[in-house]
Amino acid sequence: MCTCYPAHDSRTDLEPRRIFRFYMNSFRAVASTFLSRYIYNIRQVLATRMMQISHANTSWESKAAAKRSSTNAKIPQEWQLSNAELEKAAKQKDLTGSFIEQYLTPDEGFIVAQDANKLAENIRSGEWTAKTVAQAFCKSAAIAHQIDNCLHEIFFDQAISRAEELDAYYKVNGKTIGPLHGVPVSLKDQFHVKGNDTSMGYIGWIGTYQGSTDKKLVHNVDSQIVSELLSLGVVLFCKTSLPQGILITETINNLIGRTMNPYNQNLSAGGSSGGEGALQALRGSPVGLGTDIGGSVRIPAAFNGLFALKPSYGRLSYRDVGNVIPGQTTYRSSIGILGRSIESLYLVLTSVLSTEPWLRDPYVVPLPWRQQLVDTILEEPSVDGAVNPGRPLKLGIFWTDNVVTPHPPITRGLKIVVDAVKRAGHKVVPWDPPEHSTAKRIHASFLKADGRHDIHKQLDLSGEPLIPQTVEKFALTDPISVTEYHNLTLQGIAYETAYSDYWNSTGVDDGQLVDAVIMPAAPHAGVLPGKFFHATYTAAINVLDYSAVVIPVTKANASIDKADPNYMPLNETDEKNWNAYDADIFDGAPVGVQIVARKFEEEKIWAIGKLIYQALLAERNQ
Amino acid sequence: MCTCYPAHDSRTDLEPRRIFRFYMNSFRAVASTFLSRYIYNIRQVLATRMMQISHANTSWESKAAAKRSSTNAKIPQEWQLSNAELEKAAKQKDLTGSFIEQYLTPDEGFIVAQDANKLAENIRSGEWTAKTVAQAFCKSAAIAHQIDNCLHEIFFDQAISRAEELDAYYKVNGKTIGPLHGVPVSLKDQFHVKGNDTSMGYIGWIGTYQGSTDKKLVHNVDSQIVSELLSLGVVLFCKTSLPQGILITETINNLIGRTMNPYNQNLSAGGSSGGEGALQALRGSPVGLGTDIGGSVRIPAAFNGLFALKPSYGRLSYRDVGNVIPGQTTYRSSIGILGRSIESLYLVLTSVLSTEPWLRDPYVVPLPWRQQLVDTILEEPSVDGAVNPGRPLKLGIFWTDNVVTPHPPITRGLKIVVDAVKRAGHKVVPWDPPEHSTAKRIHASFLKADGRHDIHKQLDLSGEPLIPQTVEKFALTDPISVTEYHNLTLQGIAYETAYSDYWNSTGVDDGQLVDAVIMPAAPHAGVLPGKFFHATYTAAINVLDYSAVVIPVTKANASIDKADPNYMPLNETDEKNWNAYDADIFDGAPVGVQIVARKFEEEKIWAIGKLIYQALLAERNQ
Repeated sequence: MCTCYPAHDSRTDLEPRRIFRFYMNSFRAVASTFLSRYIYNIRQVLATRMMQISHANTSWESKAAAKRSSTNAKIPQEWQLSNAELEKAAKQKDLTGSFIEQYLTPDEGFIVAQDANKLAENIRSGEWTAKTVAQAFCKSAAIAHQIDNCLHEIFFDQAISRAEELDAYYKVNGKTIGPLHGVPVSLKDQFHVKGNDTSMGYIGWIGTYQGSTDKKLVHNVDSQIVSELLSLGVVLFCKTSLPQGILITETINNLIGRTMNPYNQNLSAGGSSGGEGALQALRGSPVGLGTDIGGSVRIPAAFNGLFALKPSYGRLSYRDVGNVIPGQTTYRSSIGILGRSIESLYLVLTSVLSTEPWLRDPYVVPLPWRQQLVDTILEEPSVDGAVNPGRPLKLGIFWTDNVVTPHPPITRGLKIVVDAVKRAGHKVVPWDPPEHSTAKRIHASFLKADGRHDIHKQLDLSGEPLIPQTVEKFALTDPISVTEYHNLTLQGIAYETAYSDYWNSTGVDDGQLVDAVIMPAAPHAGVLPGKFFHATYTAAINVLDYSAVVIPVTKANASIDKADPNYMPLNETDEKNWNAYDADIFDGAPVGVQIVARKFEEEKIWAIGKLIYQALLAERNQ
Repeated sequence: MCTCYPAHDSRTDLEPRRIFRFYMNSFRAVASTFLSRYIYNIRQVLATRMMQISHANTSWESKAAAKRSSTNAKIPQEWQLSNAELEKAAKQKDLTGSFIEQYLTPDEGFIVAQDANKLAENIRSGEWTAKTVAQAFCKSAAIAHQIDNCLHEIFFDQAISRAEELDAYYKVNGKTIGPLHGVPVSLKDQFHVKGNDTSMGYIGWIGTYQGSTDKKLVHNVDSQIVSELLSLGVVLFCKTSLPQGILITETINNLIGRTMNPYNQNLSAGGSSGGEGALQALRGSPVGLGTDIGGSVRIPAAFNGLFALKPSYGRLSYRDVGNVIPGQTTYRSSIGILGRSIESLYLVLTSVLSTEPWLRDPYVVPLPWRQQLVDTILEEPSVDGAVNPGRPLKLGIFWTDNVVTPHPPITRGLKIVVDAVKRAGHKVVPWDPPEHSTAKRIHASFLKADGRHDIHKQLDLSGEPLIPQTVEKFALTDPISVTEYHNLTLQGIAYETAYSDYWNSTGVDDGQLVDAVIMPAAPHAGVLPGKFFHATYTAAINVLDYSAVVIPVTKANASIDKADPNYMPLNETDEKNWNAYDADIFDGAPVGVQIVARKFEEEKIWAIGKLIYQALLAERNQ
C-alpha cells in the first residue's frame, strides 16, 4: 500500500539534471517520499539562476529556467505560498475541495465553485462584476499552479484589464457584449494569445511564433477560436500545461516538469490537456479549451472529474493553433472543450458556433448548432425539473476492447452508468464493432509516419532532449514513402466504413440504431506516471473522427474496487496494465466515461451526455 | 483553315497498332481526312478477332478487342448504323441536332430533347411510360456511341426491365417510386453497377472489381450513389468513356480509343468525363454523373454545351466508386452532375441528398439541402416568370489567371456573361486572388506524389502501356517521402487560407462580400487533341475544394473570334496555347463558363448559376 506522493511543484525541481533524474525514477518516486526533502525556497534559487542567464547562458536549460522564473514572477506577492504551504501541499494526496479552498476567501471560494453558466448569468444580472470574477479565478489559478504545476503562461494583468473594459461596457450600455461576457476561459498552451508565448512544451518555441522569429508573428497572433471567444466576451487569464510534443497521455515537459492529478497525487493528471484538467479540478478555471488527436481532451477530463466534449474535426476552427506534425491531415486533432458542468460545454460550443467560424477558416464545415437534434433527445422537462427523454434511447455498452481490460474502478463506473440509464427507461445493448486493435495500428502508423521528424525539428530549435518517456518511442527514423502512406489511408477508410456499417447494422433487429456508445475513456482512473500503456479507448474514436462527451461518474474506492487476483491477462500489454493497478494507490481518483456518437453529432452526443448525467444524479438522489 | 475531322469511331481503329499510330499522329489526323479510308464493316473484323481470342490469346489488345466487341454487340441490330452512315458521320463536323435526330422517329426525337425534369414530370403525369422514355434514350445513346465513341458499357436490357418494373409499380400504386422515377441517368465508367464491368479505362479492370477477382465483388457492387439513384427511381442504361487513369482532360484510352466533341469533331470532347459530355450533347442522356479532381466534370460540360455542378468533396458519396490514387485524400475528387438544363442539376442533387447519404458513407458531411440559401438568391419570380434576385449580387470576374490567356471565344463568352449580369442589376468586380500558379504547383505535386505507382499498378494488371499523351508525364518515379508530403500539405493549407482571406477582404469597402466568381472553365472552347496545356482554371478550384457550376454561354464563331496577331505571350505555356488557336478550326465549339462559390455552397452556386443563365436568356430574347 502506498499513500505517499511525489513532489512535483515546478519550483522544487528546477535544476534540469534533477528534472531528468526525477523522470527516470518516476516509479520509485511514486513509491517513496524521499523527494520531499528537495522542497526549499525557490525564490532564492531563481534569483541565482536569473543572474546566470543574464551572463549569456543560452542553453535550453537556462531558457527553460528563465521562462519558469518569469511565469512565476507574474503571480502577485500576496498570492505566493510559503515554503511551509508548498511542503504541506506536496504531502497532500487530494488537493481539491477544502484543501485549495483554504487559500481563498469565502466569497472567492463561492465564485470559483460556480460553473461558466452561473458566472455568465451572475455577471449579466449585475450581481458580480467581471473584474470580481476574474480576480477570484486568477487567484485560484495562481494557487493551483503553485501546488500542482499546471500553467505555462500567466497573464492576470491582461485579464484584469479586459474585465475592467467589459465592466465599463456593461455600465455604459446596460448589457453584455456577448453570451460569454466576463467568463474566464483557460487555454491549453497550443492556442495563441497576443502578447504571450505559446511553447507547446517546446523550449525552442519560447519567445517565438512556433519557432519562427518573424516579428509580425511573435506575440502578435490570436488563434481564430481565441478571437471568437474574445468577441463573445471571455476573459483569458492563463495557458495550461501539456507534454512535450503533445503526443503522450501524461503531462510532462522540460519546461515545468510534471503535472499531477489533484485528486490523487500518486497519479498523473493525464494528457495531453493535463494542465487544463488539473487547473479545473482545482477550481482554477470554469471552462477551457484543449485539443484531442488520441484522447487528449477526454483523458484529462475523465481523470480530473470533469465534463468534456470532443467534436469531429471541422466543427471548430484549428486555424493558427500550434500543433504537432501539422502536415498530417488524414487524422486531425480536434479542438475540444473541458468544463465543470455539462451545461458549460453547451454554452461555449453554441456561442462559438454562433460566430460562424467557417467564414474565416476554410476547414470548418458550415454546420450551425442544430438545436432540434438536442430537442429530440431532451424533450419535455417534467414538473420536478428532471429531463425526460423524447424517446427511449438505445445505447451500446463497450465493457472492454478485448485488448486491455479496464481496471476495476472503470468497470464499476461503466456499470453505474448502465444501471442508471436502464432504470431511466433506455435500452442498453452490447457493442461489438470492428476490432479497435486495427484502429490502434492505423493511428500509431500515422503519428509516426514522418519518422518523428517534426518533433525533432522543434527540439533542435533549442537543443532540448526528448523527455525520458518518449526517448525510445519518438526516436528519429526514416519517414515512410507516400505509397505506404496512401496504403495506410486506404486501410483507415476501410476501417471507418466497416465501423459505420456495423453501426447501421444495429438497427436490423428492432429498427432502432444505437444512438451512442458508453465506453471507457481509459482502462484506468488516472494513471501512474509512465504506466499509460493503451490509449486506444480514445484513439480509436479519433480514427473514426466521431463526436464524444466525457462525464464524471464516481471515484476509485479501495474498499470496493478490488482486483481479481485470478485475472488471466489477455496479452503482454494487458498484463502490464493489470499489474499497474493497486486499489489503495488509485483510491480517490475520479472515474469518467466517454459516450460516443458518430461524425458531426455534437448536438446529439451533448444531449445524451446530459441525459445520462441526469440519470446518474437521479440515482444518487434516491 | 481546316474543315476536316478525324475519324474516331471505335470501330474504325480496332487494331491496337492502328490505335497507337492514330494517337501518335493526332495532330496530323486533325489536319487531314486520310483516316476515313479505314472505315469499313466492323462486324466482320470483330468476328475474326473473337475467334482469335477464343484461341487463348490473352494479350491486353485482345482483351480490349473482346470487350469492345461485346459492348457493341449489345446494340440491337435495328439500331446499328451502316458503313455508309458511319462514313458520313465521320466526315461531319457537327454531329448534334438535326444530324443525330435523323436516326430517330419524331416521337423519339421529342423525348430525347427533354431535360430530366420534363421527363420525370411526364412520366409522373402518366403521359409517357418509363419504358417509352428508356427505349428512346437507349436508341439515341446507341447512335451516339456509334458515331462518337462515347460508351464503355451498354446495358439496355437491364434498363428496359427496370423501366417495365417502374411502370408496373406506377400502374399498381398510382404513383412514382421517387422523384427520379423513370429518368434515364448515365454514369462515367468509374461508378459500379451490378452486373457490369467498371474499367475506368484500364484494360486490367475488365471482368474484375477494380483489378480484384474476388467473386463476392466482381459485378456484384453498386456504388453507394448508384443505390441512392436507384432508390429514387432512375433507369440506368450505360456507362460513359473516360481517359486511362482519369487524370487527363481529354478522353482517350486503350479500350475504345478517343471520344471527340460532337459539336466540332476537330476537337476533343474534353475529359475526364468526356464520354458523359459527348453523350449528353448528342441527346443520348438527359443527365449523368462524373467525377472532378481537376476539372473533369466542368471541362467536358463547358466543351459540350452542358450545365454542370461540382460540389465540394463530402457533399455526395464517393463510396465504392473506382478512383485513381484512392489513398491520396488531401485533394479529393468530387462527384459532379452534368445535365442538359440547370434545373436537372437541382433535381438530381436535391433528390440524392434527400436519401441522407451521410448515414451510409462516413465521408459525407451531414448537410441536407438548404433551400433557404437558394431562396435568398432567387426570390420573388416576377409576373413574366423571369427570376428576380432577392438582392443585387456582387460577382467577381476573372478574365485571366495571368498564366495562360484564354482564347478569344472564351474572353467573349466571359464578356457576354458580365454584360448580362450587369444589365440585370448586379455588381461585377475584378477578381485578383492569390496566384493560381501556386495552386497549379500544389495540385500537380499531389497527383504525382506517389511516383505514379498507382496508375502503373493498374496498367500492370493487363500489361497495357500508357497512352501516348501520358508516356512522359506519367513515367514511373520514386514516390516522395511523407515529410515532403506533409510540407506540401502545409503549403496547400496556407494557400486555401490566403484565398479565403482574400475572399473575405472583398467586403471591406462596401460591406458586401463577393458572392461568386465568373471564370473560364478552360482557356479554350473545346481542345485540339494533345493541346490541353493548362487545366488550372478548374484545378485551382479543386485545391480550394470550392463549389462550382458550369453554364453554356455561346459558341466559338470564326467571324468574330479573331486572334490578335500582335498578342505577346506571357510565357512558353501561354505561347503554346495561343498558337493552338485557329478561329476556323474552333468555329462552332460551345463556350461555357464556370461560376465558383466557396466550400459547401452548392445551394448558393446553383441559384447563382440559374440566375445568370436566366440573365443570358433575357439578353438573347431582347
